[in-house]
Amino acid sequence: MATKIILDCDPGHDDAIAMLLAYGNPDIELVAVTTVVGNQTLEKVTRNALSVARIAGITGVPFAAGCPRPLVRAIENAPDIHGETGLDGPVLPEPTLELDRRHAVDLIIDTVMSHEPGEITIVPTAGLTNIALAVRKEPRIASRVREVVLMGGGYHEGNWSAVAEFNIIIDPEAAHIVFNESWPVTMVGLDLTHQALATPDVIEKIAAVGTGPARFVLELLDFFGATYREAQGFEHPPVHDPCAVAYVIDPSVMTVRKAPVDIELTGSLTLGMTVADFRSPAPADCHTQVAVKLDHERFWNLVVDALQRIGDVQA
Amino acid sequence: MATKIILDCDPGHDDAIAMLLAYGNPDIELVAVTTVVGNQTLEKVTRNALSVARIAGITGVPFAAGCPRPLVRAIENAPDIHGETGLDGPVLPEPTLELDRRHAVDLIIDTVMSHEPGEITIVPTAGLTNIALAVRKEPRIASRVREVVLMGGGYHEGNWSAVAEFNIIIDPEAAHIVFNESWPVTMVGLDLTHQALATPDVIEKIAAVGTGPARFVLELLDFFGATYREAQGFEHPPVHDPCAVAYVIDPSVMTVRKAPVDIELTGSLTLGMTVADFRSPAPADCHTQVAVKLDHERFWNLVVDALQRIGDVQA
Amino acid sequence: MATKIILDCDPGHDDAIAMLLAYGNPDIELVAVTTVVGNQTLEKVTRNALSVARIAGITGVPFAAGCPRPLVRAIENAPDIHGETGLDGPVLPEPTLELDRRHAVDLIIDTVMSHEPGEITIVPTAGLTNIALAVRKEPRIASRVREVVLMGGGYHEGNWSAVAEFNIIIDPEAAHIVFNESWPVTMVGLDLTHQALATPDVIEKIAAVGTGPARFVLELLDFFGATYREAQGFEHPPVHDPCAVAYVIDPSVMTVRKAPVDIELTGSLTLGMTVADFRSPAPADCHTQVAVKLDHERFWNLVVDALQRIGDVQA
Amino acid sequence: MATKIILDCDPGHDDAIAMLLAYGNPDIELVAVTTVVGNQTLEKVTRNALSVARIAGITGVPFAAGCPRPLVRAIENAPDIHGETGLDGPVLPEPTLELDRRHAVDLIIDTVMSHEPGEITIVPTAGLTNIALAVRKEPRIASRVREVVLMGGGYHEGNWSAVAEFNIIIDPEAAHIVFNESWPVTMVGLDLTHQALATPDVIEKIAAVGTGPARFVLELLDFFGATYREAQGFEHPPVHDPCAVAYVIDPSVMTVRKAPVDIELTGSLTLGMTVADFRSPAPADCHTQVAVKLDHERFWNLVVDALQRIGDVQA
Ligand SMILES: [Ca+2]
Ligand SMILES: [Ca+2]
Ligand SMILES: [Ca+2]
Ligand SMILES: [Ca+2]
Repeated sequence: MATKIILDCDPGHDDAIAMLLAYGNPDIELVAVTTVVGNQTLEKVTRNALSVARIAGITGVPFAAGCPRPLVRAIENAPDIHGETGLDGPVLPEPTLELDRRHAVDLIIDTVMSHEPGEITIVPTAGLTNIALAVRKEPRIASRVREVVLMGGGYHEGNWSAVAEFNIIIDPEAAHIVFNESWPVTMVGLDLTHQALATPDVIEKIAAVGTGPARFVLELLDFFGATYREAQGFEHPPVHDPCAVAYVIDPSVMTVRKAPVDIELTGSLTLGMTVADFRSPAPADCHTQVAVKLDHERFWNLVVDALQRIGDVQA
Repeated sequence: MATKIILDCDPGHDDAIAMLLAYGNPDIELVAVTTVVGNQTLEKVTRNALSVARIAGITGVPFAAGCPRPLVRAIENAPDIHGETGLDGPVLPEPTLELDRRHAVDLIIDTVMSHEPGEITIVPTAGLTNIALAVRKEPRIASRVREVVLMGGGYHEGNWSAVAEFNIIIDPEAAHIVFNESWPVTMVGLDLTHQALATPDVIEKIAAVGTGPARFVLELLDFFGATYREAQGFEHPPVHDPCAVAYVIDPSVMTVRKAPVDIELTGSLTLGMTVADFRSPAPADCHTQVAVKLDHERFWNLVVDALQRIGDVQA
Repeated sequence: MATKIILDCDPGHDDAIAMLLAYGNPDIELVAVTTVVGNQTLEKVTRNALSVARIAGITGVPFAAGCPRPLVRAIENAPDIHGETGLDGPVLPEPTLELDRRHAVDLIIDTVMSHEPGEITIVPTAGLTNIALAVRKEPRIASRVREVVLMGGGYHEGNWSAVAEFNIIIDPEAAHIVFNESWPVTMVGLDLTHQALATPDVIEKIAAVGTGPARFVLELLDFFGATYREAQGFEHPPVHDPCAVAYVIDPSVMTVRKAPVDIELTGSLTLGMTVADFRSPAPADCHTQVAVKLDHERFWNLVVDALQRIGDVQA
Repeated sequence: MATKIILDCDPGHDDAIAMLLAYGNPDIELVAVTTVVGNQTLEKVTRNALSVARIAGITGVPFAAGCPRPLVRAIENAPDIHGETGLDGPVLPEPTLELDRRHAVDLIIDTVMSHEPGEITIVPTAGLTNIALAVRKEPRIASRVREVVLMGGGYHEGNWSAVAEFNIIIDPEAAHIVFNESWPVTMVGLDLTHQALATPDVIEKIAAVGTGPARFVLELLDFFGATYREAQGFEHPPVHDPCAVAYVIDPSVMTVRKAPVDIELTGSLTLGMTVADFRSPAPADCHTQVAVKLDHERFWNLVVDALQRIGDVQA
């Protein structure tokens, strides 16, 4: 049976690919898409999410907008990586889907509470503001959610500071809430996603799909590759967000390691660091694990396969 | 015209008196009562709120339960001050009111958004978790609320640490959110409320009212006086929460001073301090002010008057 | 018998007056003067100290230069208050005294260790870098020093931030060291020194002395008054540093209150705050006290008297 | 020509081996040994240093005791690793050397200032209190020291917390001072020293030396191995401190990487972390580098060779 997920995202180039992967893969059922401020303003990323839905032909899935700003900190966006629209590069079609009238926080709560315990997996690929608010507003979701598989953080890698990653550092208090709840958390962080490079052979395989959505992905990767080269010195861009979706599809696509993880909230140099403690074997009740090593080929094959299944879409 | 307020509270002895004052005073219209973890667990303070409603004969006002824990920190209650029930002392009647089905956060949002801009005043007399969540979920309330008049903090006084007060330190991140929003904030802190002592002449006046609700207040003050004597060395107990309500009724019952106020989130000795900057005259756009000096007699006369108006209540 | 003091200073207008008060008063024996970075660079304040020595006719007292920078933080000076030289206003004579060849830290240690326990009082009127280094290098001075009477901090007042004072915030780690050592510490902070205003009647009395050193003080106060008016909005300048010396001469010139005091090192808004805990009576072994209320007239009479005793000095 | 080093240490099992390596290796000239609180109290580690000197037959080298406590924090020792004496295991001979009468801080300063610029290398294998005090008391040593090669920290490994190492976390302010001075700093941290395991083949080679000092090392490693197994789960003990000495002897015994490194002073989870920034190539003026990979065999051969050169010592 397909795993039901809520994708909480801020498209964002890699969020868009994550959405395509989730929608195109038969082992995932996308039951809701929620958006949150991050790579760009809430307004922009929400419009982007709806445009991607049209490109992929997604229908029948509620999309809801969430928080326009982090809990405590000022808004920080990432135009140097994702451009002014948050999804620079491709020409985006006008959305056709209408937003769900609920707040993302309520859509998350309603979705989790209306399914059986253990049925819903939350996949955040953005700052954790929505998820934190949802579990604070309705604490019972913590025990009903199957697991939280998130893109964010890094136990040895940082990008927005020496030791912190963008999705965590833009709302570290929200991350602290999410990592300290009782649900299982799989952190697919930079240690893993810096292995998910869109290398030339990957580009070639995607090009071979030959559909509209595949061309859209190529345009995304073209822009993303350029900004990552410019801003962070990567030869090929790391495509973070679909890694979290890939783990839900097939955990064996990466190795993971159990370890206590907590979020630094007061450090001058380390604010938003996902501090993992590897000094001893993780205790039996450890509810957090971190992704370590990616099977690059199988990961990208999942993406290509999803694009093939989506096929060409009537706009 | 009476000022419409939402009372967000954690009864709590002084919260109970605040509720009586708000309900009994003709210049206030109580449009909603919301509860939040604080003096005791959410379950206990919510039950207490409903019992107080019965004692005061409050009907037609929605009561809703809110957050059972602070945003980021672990739960801290105050049994040494308020006892194991949160309202130790009097025998409490079974509640007769039913809780509104909405979450306090949604009741706050709905109430503010369904009234005209500038109509609703929020009066928090507890930790600020509900208010913070409400304004993060629906940012538009920040400009629709008339003002936030809160009991909490202290510019020169502390009780839960040398320089921090209970309502702020139990959820400093929530306080940071509330104080940094654009709405006007009046901080009725310990500097003011340590002047609102229930002295023997006050007790006498309340006793003279001779009603059931007045006897209830006497029982509250009896217990409260004992714990404040024991735990904090006060000869007569400071009755914090009704001071915030009194300011809404009649701002001239206290002097206030405009000053920038912010919340310390990282201090080792100063966590949760409400840092007020008195070095220069407050800038023209300063949206925060602090209460400085109480007219003790007029304040308590307001309380006595409210009790007289409430009269005897059929249980 | 006169109290032997080491004056550790950063002249600085009020430091200069403190030095004149200590030298001119018969109840104080100035056994060493040490300098430290603060109001200006070490080089400048050291030269200023020697110039003031010449103006006052101080001989036979060792002067030594100490630390050119704080322990951990970057150097912060106060040119807006003390000008580019650290003693702007008067024309300063070339120093005639030669500096002691020892480092201030060693002069402090040698002086304390070569006197009987309880004989030496340390009077810091600057950042506490020298004193902190001295007690870390030679821990035995902590029990040999009679007391530390320092100008710095403030329990309810700040100047360099809303809640922190210059001498403490420029080297908070040093202050943490000094306040947490076992010696008695009297904190003569802004709460007290903001009462030590050089009002017109004070100016008049000093003018009436009619000597060279008195004229020098008038020139200092003239400049100091102007910068305090400009930078901090004071009508008459608060003359901080001599207050600490006055307390050593005659503790009854001010009221003090015992209270635990500690230094905030990690606060975002409160770094360098001298956090005093007034919630309960100070414990019996409390070794810190804070100055509360100044006898303005008696304080300034001490200054005038010292100037009269110094008389006119042959340059 | 041999490199002149000051060894600043807290013996400590691995410090003892570091001292033997430094003394026995012909490419190092040990010009001073200074001690500082750390693995045990200053008194104990100083006595240990002198006992090791006797075991190794070290004469003509000044030994001086330094700081008995860290700058700001309370004393933290490591009896679980080094035992109650700081050098548990072997029976230690009574010291025969007399301590230099100077404070370690002054011995360090005098040694550096009396040699040519660039002649002296400082090798701290303990908390950095002495070194920090020395450079604050005499700032000119920062430009006269050739380099600081220290054992401490870890860019991806921690032992005293998830991300901090003992030598740094026991005095993070001192570490902050040392890492932020202008001298070149090579951090030989846990990332490197966790490779310096005393494996059975190493033990065998040392046993084969057959001298008194070699037997002493075996006894040290026997105790050290047991505590590391017990306290930190290591199969074979990591022998940290001699790695720093080995780098001075022959930098090619390990690979290093230039990167900015700074010390976290305010983190709740990360206090004392040596935060290295690997996101970009280090800037041209980067004065810090971290040790990455050890040549295990060549490292231990240096130790064995030093023991052979020391030979048997007349007690
Ligand atoms: Ca994203
Ligand atoms: Ca309350
Ligand atoms: Ca001064
Ligand atoms: Ca060591």
